[in-house]
Amino acid sequence: MSDHVRIDRTRDRERLATAVEEARAGLAEGGIPIGAALYAPDGTPLGRGRNRRVQDGDPSTHAETAAFRNAGRQRSYRGTTMVTTLSPCWYCSGLVRQFGISRVVIGEARTFHGGHDWLAEHGVEIVLLDDAECVAMMRDFIEKNPALWNEDIGE
Amino acid sequence: MSDHVRIDRTRDRERLATAVEEARAGLAEGGIPIGAALYAPDGTPLGRGRNRRVQDGDPSTHAETAAFRNAGRQRSYRGTTMVTTLSPCWYCSGLVRQFGISRVVIGEARTFHGGHDWLAEHGVEIVLLDDAECVAMMRDFIEKNPALWNEDIGE
Repeated sequence: MSDHVRIDRTRDRERLATAVEEARAGLAEGGIPIGAALYAPDGTPLGRGRNRRVQDGDPSTHAETAAFRNAGRQRSYRGTTMVTTLSPCWYCSGLVRQFGISRVVIGEARTFHGGHDWLAEHGVEIVLLDDAECVAMMRDFIEKNPALWNEDIGE
Repeated sequence: MSDHVRIDRTRDRERLATAVEEARAGLAEGGIPIGAALYAPDGTPLGRGRNRRVQDGDPSTHAETAAFRNAGRQRSYRGTTMVTTLSPCWYCSGLVRQFGISRVVIGEARTFHGGHDWLAEHGVEIVLLDDAECVAMMRDFIEKNPALWNEDIGE
């Protein structure tokens, strides 16, 4: 592994920590613990957010769409990175593809496997960190709240 | 064409009129004229909405996601119909697929061809009305606001 790659992963893991912070804040609010953050090509944070189904009674606010919304209007998403604690569902994968977000850094895809393979096929760079903390957080949540989780993914 | 099919199209055209009303309200507000509405399997309106990029500075509110949000939390979308003035982009197509919305009625796909073929491949019933009023409304809007339109579709 080259130094360059190691440096990149360190930065991605730091960014994942921000997404995890969002997820944990959501959990503390009684919500679904998924968090995300969007970064400019130069690394500037553009927006961060979390799933708000429970908190706002809003099924349209997934973590990725919350981060995207909180980033406000942008002329282009070329070179941006979306960091999320969980593999993005079709809704959030569609967001990434439509707006041309270039990279997606994913905490884990063990508890839910969304559309990230489809994104990779369409030229999006996917980084799957397989983070143990993210897996444990979601596994525990799903075990305790199966109906709420199924509602959030339309199952 | 059977009576049954004719009756269905009449109902779909009535629902499209509601989506067009939303689109025209958005245009009057200085926004992007795309509207949508979500209906329960028994025809009950669940939610309606319009693109709010300009009005709220919110790039995450497309017409379909607005209608979906305004419908509030639902346990299941099986049998529901999303009516939209324009072919749904990947973001909105992803919404439909993830939540298992069963039908999508589309005003037109001439000015923008989104993900509706992909949805059809995945079992969603697609009704393309090819409505002249919808085409004219978007054609006129795009001609006058090309930068805003490109921003909304990430181009």
